[in-house]
Amino acid sequence: MNSHLFDRAIALDTRADGRYSGRTDPAWANMVGPFGGITAATALNALLLHPDRLGEPVALTVNFCAALNDGAFEVEAQTVRTNRSTQHWAVSIEQGGETVLSATALTAVRRDTWGAQEEPLPPVLSPAALGKPSMMAPVEWVKRYDLRFPEGAMPRVWDGTGESSRTTVWMRDEPPRPLDFPALVALCDVFYPRVWLRRATRVPAGTVSMTVYFHARATELAAVGEGWLLGQAQASAFRNGYFDQRAQVWSQAGALLATTHQVVYFKE
Amino acid sequence: MNSHLFDRAIALDTRADGRYSGRTDPAWANMVGPFGGITAATALNALLLHPDRLGEPVALTVNFCAALNDGAFEVEAQTVRTNRSTQHWAVSIEQGGETVLSATALTAVRRDTWGAQEEPLPPVLSPAALGKPSMMAPVEWVKRYDLRFPEGAMPRVWDGTGESSRTTVWMRDEPPRPLDFPALVALCDVFYPRVWLRRATRVPAGTVSMTVYFHARATELAAVGEGWLLGQAQASAFRNGYFDQRAQVWSQAGALLATTHQVVYFKE
Repeated sequence: MNSHLFDRAIALDTRADGRYSGRTDPAWANMVGPFGGITAATALNALLLHPDRLGEPVALTVNFCAALNDGAFEVEAQTVRTNRSTQHWAVSIEQGGETVLSATALTAVRRDTWGAQEEPLPPVLSPAALGKPSMMAPVEWVKRYDLRFPEGAMPRVWDGTGESSRTTVWMRDEPPRPLDFPALVALCDVFYPRVWLRRATRVPAGTVSMTVYFHARATELAAVGEGWLLGQAQASAFRNGYFDQRAQVWSQAGALLATTHQVVYFKE
Repeated sequence: MNSHLFDRAIALDTRADGRYSGRTDPAWANMVGPFGGITAATALNALLLHPDRLGEPVALTVNFCAALNDGAFEVEAQTVRTNRSTQHWAVSIEQGGETVLSATALTAVRRDTWGAQEEPLPPVLSPAALGKPSMMAPVEWVKRYDLRFPEGAMPRVWDGTGESSRTTVWMRDEPPRPLDFPALVALCDVFYPRVWLRRATRVPAGTVSMTVYFHARATELAAVGEGWLLGQAQASAFRNGYFDQRAQVWSQAGALLATTHQVVYFKE
């Protein structure tokens, strides 16, 4: 039995093929409900547990329809279409008969092909050189990660002087845990709201939709093991209550493991 | 009655609230089935026609589950969750009882807020300076657009010498048509497969999932009217049969109207 807090949080009890029950975990609490990344990882876990699954995750889109309440929830993962080497999925999470999350995903049998990477690992100080920051975790889930910022840490002074929305951050589960697809999904949501950095102003903000594209197979994630990942996130535009965030996640060796995007609500 | 070929292609007959029938249009034919962008625009049109819709599109994710066959199809648009100012949608397109497209979307009432744009219009030659290219349209749908490439046009020689996957292209409906959300969605899929440019090699490729984030409201799109849009698209990684594409779409005046991402299957 794996007792890592991450595994405990995404654990699901199977009720029938594709139907599961789960429960929010106080170790992953955000300001309201749980950290979105752990909820997204739970949604992915539902299809990974499905006996009919074909291949490995290639794409996942998660829509946060409403804040989860602390407590029990139901998860359903259904195949929408199964082709020869690809499979499309619909996943939903419900509480009290209401949808709180809707997701779609693509899994596929991935074959060896020609490959190339156009986004290299940015040159930054190593996690060891940066050292562990003496940061107060503003919410409980942040304590589940070791985060070290070469660039764009959360402002210490909220004085409205922000100029760029870019953050570059070394990240690792705390305590370390071997990398897999659910852990990678959660890490894709680790970046705090870009609007806080760009404005150096703390306004209410919440992710409404997140997409992850996986550029690595399970064996490659396993090879990263408990190593550091580097994430870089930036917004393109803030307008009329919403902004986007694009991000890349690399292994310390420089392999691009995932690209991810989200659209985030903000107030004022 | 608007007789523009774009409007003809995305037209739907309402069977009941949220249930529609449509038909592929030979004017938008791709190599197999219709251009994915017109199918994505049709999916968006289904929810735009829905009498219960709240607000305007903020995010759309479209999964291409199988190639559409030429002929009739059924579309269903359902509200998944309606909040005070946001609404989550599920849309599907079926042929012969099988799902060929599944989509999720977010619509919202967008209010005036603080705003900023971090991705400026890249400095390139104007559409007039570039002039109309004497390009042979490889497939029918390409004739529906006027596309002028400051950078990264489709290779003329397939000799394996590609170095970058970046394309920058002025684009406009042909003949011009006032911009709206469906037209913007279709334009987000105008870029030919990045793998063709990066390798200067033409291999089978097809989009499997596409996401669009809208940074403009209907009034702002209407103000662009029949003007040119500039698109820029690039891949981050090609690996094990799939690559990603990130793209931005600006008005000629420099407003970022949409950011869009897709994951694309490729062979070899």
